[in-house]
Amino acid sequence: MTDEQYMSVALKLAEKNLGDVFPNPTVGCVIVKDGAIIGKGCTAVGGRPHAEKLALQNTKEDTEGGTMYVTLEPCCHHGVTGPCTEEVIKSKVSRVVVAAMDPDPRVSGGGIRALEEAGIRVDQGVMREEAEALNVGFFTTRLRNRPYITCKVATTLDGKIASFTGHSKWITGEDTRRWVHELRAKYDAVMIGSNTLVADDPLLTCRIPGLESKSPIRLVVDTQGKLNADHNVAKTADQVDTWVVTNNRKHQLVENVKYLEVNSSNDSKVCLKDLTTKLVSRIGITRLLVEGGGVLVTQMLKRNLVDRLIICRSGKILGNDGIPFVGNLALESIGKCYVFKKAQIIDLSDDVVEIWDSVAK
Amino acid sequence: MTDEQYMSVALKLAEKNLGDVFPNPTVGCVIVKDGAIIGKGCTAVGGRPHAEKLALQNTKEDTEGGTMYVTLEPCCHHGVTGPCTEEVIKSKVSRVVVAAMDPDPRVSGGGIRALEEAGIRVDQGVMREEAEALNVGFFTTRLRNRPYITCKVATTLDGKIASFTGHSKWITGEDTRRWVHELRAKYDAVMIGSNTLVADDPLLTCRIPGLESKSPIRLVVDTQGKLNADHNVAKTADQVDTWVVTNNRKHQLVENVKYLEVNSSNDSKVCLKDLTTKLVSRIGITRLLVEGGGVLVTQMLKRNLVDRLIICRSGKILGNDGIPFVGNLALESIGKCYVFKKAQIIDLSDDVVEIWDSVAK
Repeated sequence: MTDEQYMSVALKLAEKNLGDVFPNPTVGCVIVKDGAIIGKGCTAVGGRPHAEKLALQNTKEDTEGGTMYVTLEPCCHHGVTGPCTEEVIKSKVSRVVVAAMDPDPRVSGGGIRALEEAGIRVDQGVMREEAEALNVGFFTTRLRNRPYITCKVATTLDGKIASFTGHSKWITGEDTRRWVHELRAKYDAVMIGSNTLVADDPLLTCRIPGLESKSPIRLVVDTQGKLNADHNVAKTADQVDTWVVTNNRKHQLVENVKYLEVNSSNDSKVCLKDLTTKLVSRIGITRLLVEGGGVLVTQMLKRNLVDRLIICRSGKILGNDGIPFVGNLALESIGKCYVFKKAQIIDLSDDVVEIWDSVAK
Repeated sequence: MTDEQYMSVALKLAEKNLGDVFPNPTVGCVIVKDGAIIGKGCTAVGGRPHAEKLALQNTKEDTEGGTMYVTLEPCCHHGVTGPCTEEVIKSKVSRVVVAAMDPDPRVSGGGIRALEEAGIRVDQGVMREEAEALNVGFFTTRLRNRPYITCKVATTLDGKIASFTGHSKWITGEDTRRWVHELRAKYDAVMIGSNTLVADDPLLTCRIPGLESKSPIRLVVDTQGKLNADHNVAKTADQVDTWVVTNNRKHQLVENVKYLEVNSSNDSKVCLKDLTTKLVSRIGITRLLVEGGGVLVTQMLKRNLVDRLIICRSGKILGNDGIPFVGNLALESIGKCYVFKKAQIIDLSDDVVEIWDSVAK
């Protein structure tokens, strides 16, 4: 097998716990000796132990002279646990292949230097793009001081998320809704606005057999204290972490629900820039899924806080008096549009799921 | 080769002149003897000669004892030319394989009866669905007394066809626009409303090398006499048939442009039901492509006059103050939506082309 093939195995391992390792990156590690994989590991749920440590623990063979494939540069700083580089050096592998460098200023090349200084040959950049894409959440927190943000909307063919009366059940079909549950599992947190809370009273969990434990943290942007103990997210807040994000300290507190206080914007709403910064600094969120409604999505879009847009479309037409997934933007010409680049089109049963990535405006 | 394989060849032949044979159906014909194709034909541009006649003319071999594959039941009535059944009987083929029955009341089984009475074995229904789909225009004129109607729109991700100022050049990319030119070639006529005439001043032709002669007839729904000699469709009306459809007899006539007068609707606009009926009875249109704008598409939709909806989408967002492809519909709930069934999703360069077929409301 080639370096790329072993690294693919490591990437596949890393993917398993995506959405369950924040604030850490998800890493995969494979140890190879004499052409055989003798150890495998991935970042554990909760973010530790790290993949390298687990791969070394999981092997019963002698690792001396072997090669370690790891999707992210091993850490070299003393954090909650000792640095991975020490364990790697102790293992006496003679070569380490790294996919992506760790942008964390505490690492950032230091891990590779430590290995090289110990006489280990290090090759880097093998499947770097794939590794960076997998950890786009972690990278975004380090490079932009906010989580990677995906907005997901379910719309009619004419872009409406509800009828003018607010009715929205269901626009997309069962298979698409199941797909969304699987999507949630890969995110650290899911966020909605208070209009969606009141209109839909959603659970926002992964309700697929086997994925229940992968439900993301739930966040409700709620300036006016609309959340009460009868809402589904409040009733299940003892099982799945639930936060109200607010700029208003005078909330009536709801049992088991946590509160994240953020600054106000000029128009006395929640300052989304402060919100996204604090999601990283206070909760450690690296991957955020925004599931509406239109008001919140529009505000995120206007502040260039949408990295990825997922549009689940069904073959229905509601008409222009329906509720749109994006509000007024006062854009005079096509050249002033917000621009997205196609990432993937999924032909899903009766619906279509479109995935578009933001092109910086 | 099997019957299905020979019929596929005939269907492929039939497809060639789609959009250029109205008011006739487009038919393909293959004559086979001793396992070899000895004659081929398809309905000529303009609708005649018919495919069977051309296939027989094109063969230099003796057809006696051969098999004829024809995508539509041969005609048995004396029209502009003699019935095809007579030619088929004269050819002494011993077997005729038919894909679809002709719904025309002057034929409708009579063609097959005539052949059988002459001692020819007839097998029908081979690739019937494909043949009916190919001639959906002709079938719709016979069964519903109107053309088959496709609405094509070019929209942003949020379903807008222009900014609030009316700017729309260009929403979709070059490859998609080229695809639309190819689409036009397969339609008998293309229709726009007068708002689109004024805003875009389009040519509505096929501007692809080799397809120029396949430009459809152009129709402008124009109640208020907005079309003048300076519009592109008027300037080229000597080359491509151009009609104004109006309920207003007092139009200033434009040179080379033809006028189709139709009844008024209750709100003094053009009665779309009368319009679509007259497109068949006066011009013979079987396949109509409506290219907007939003007002016309909405009126068509409300009257259940949209058989197929083609949405060309690009990765742009204009916001809800942009001009939508469908106007207000006053639908209270999802259950009252207009419903379309997915026919095809085309991943086309930077854009997506979605094809949806109407599900009768």
